[in-house]
Amino acid sequence: MELLKQRILSEGRALSGHVLLVDSFLNHQVDVNLMKAVGEEFARRFANAGVTRIVTIEASGIAPATMTALAMNVPMVIMKKAVSSILSEGILQREVFSFTRNAPYLLTLKARFVRPDDKVLFIDDFLANGEAAFGAIALIEQASARVAGVGTVIAKAFQPGMRKLREAGYRVEALAPVSRMGEGFIEFE
Amino acid sequence: MELLKQRILSEGRALSGHVLLVDSFLNHQVDVNLMKAVGEEFARRFANAGVTRIVTIEASGIAPATMTALAMNVPMVIMKKAVSSILSEGILQREVFSFTRNAPYLLTLKARFVRPDDKVLFIDDFLANGEAAFGAIALIEQASARVAGVGTVIAKAFQPGMRKLREAGYRVEALAPVSRMGEGFIEFE
Repeated sequence: MELLKQRILSEGRALSGHVLLVDSFLNHQVDVNLMKAVGEEFARRFANAGVTRIVTIEASGIAPATMTALAMNVPMVIMKKAVSSILSEGILQREVFSFTRNAPYLLTLKARFVRPDDKVLFIDDFLANGEAAFGAIALIEQASARVAGVGTVIAKAFQPGMRKLREAGYRVEALAPVSRMGEGFIEFE
Repeated sequence: MELLKQRILSEGRALSGHVLLVDSFLNHQVDVNLMKAVGEEFARRFANAGVTRIVTIEASGIAPATMTALAMNVPMVIMKKAVSSILSEGILQREVFSFTRNAPYLLTLKARFVRPDDKVLFIDDFLANGEAAFGAIALIEQASARVAGVGTVIAKAFQPGMRKLREAGYRVEALAPVSRMGEGFIEFE
């Protein structure tokens, strides 16, 4: 997605070979018009995939997932990273390791919000090692639903997540797949 | 906002006199078309307030804030509840007590994403004791910006947040102000 790649090149900052800062338009300050375009692009790419539901993980995935759900006219479900005191009955959980936080969290889904006849598109802001995506997929399949695919705004294609998801048979669409980066440069596939 | 109140009456569940479960359309599963209407309603109410920026707090405020920012054609900024290893320089922080989690968190904002000439509308899903709203306002004012007001999807008007914010001189718009609730009933102001 050219518009997105240009924005990453002009405002993104590779802090190292594996940390890409895009907090001026994607995950701290959010350009909602860009997110609308992102949602429409995911909707276009998965138009024939029979998607009935968007699933994301709090918090940075919510804006692009909201726009994708709006473009596809389906509900959106936010998987939680911790159990609040309100959630209790009928929940599915799976431990996921976060490399950003260097700690595990309990990915949590109320089972009734993903149904056995659903075809689910998982949307997130970043795909790197694939921990979050594989955790989300496990919960979706535990709810007996099918996975239509994974849509990520940015993929760090030099990390193993995208390859492993495709090897496992899942369709992955990355709007900006970064092949290589470092101080002062960002390259796309 | 009638559409929202009807949805709360048909799907919301008062688990006690102070816990309102609306996770089938607002904060776990999200009805994005309803959120679009919510965003348009906030845009209508604050149309003449000179809003240049929407601020919310992760995670449940993001969907309604995204839609409000889209309707008002301004950027959206997500205040964080914890410092990730990526955020470091130029941040503002304030401790906020969460009654839901019964624990404090560090509300965090990168200072450059709220500017001195900004007029900021704070959007959240719930307003109860006002801890989160007062924390967000403190950070916005610490960044030398002005507060255009507070927009909340649901207000628990029987808790002190809304009254305290108004007493402090802030405009508060609640799309569904709940005056009283308990097992089996929910009443609006």
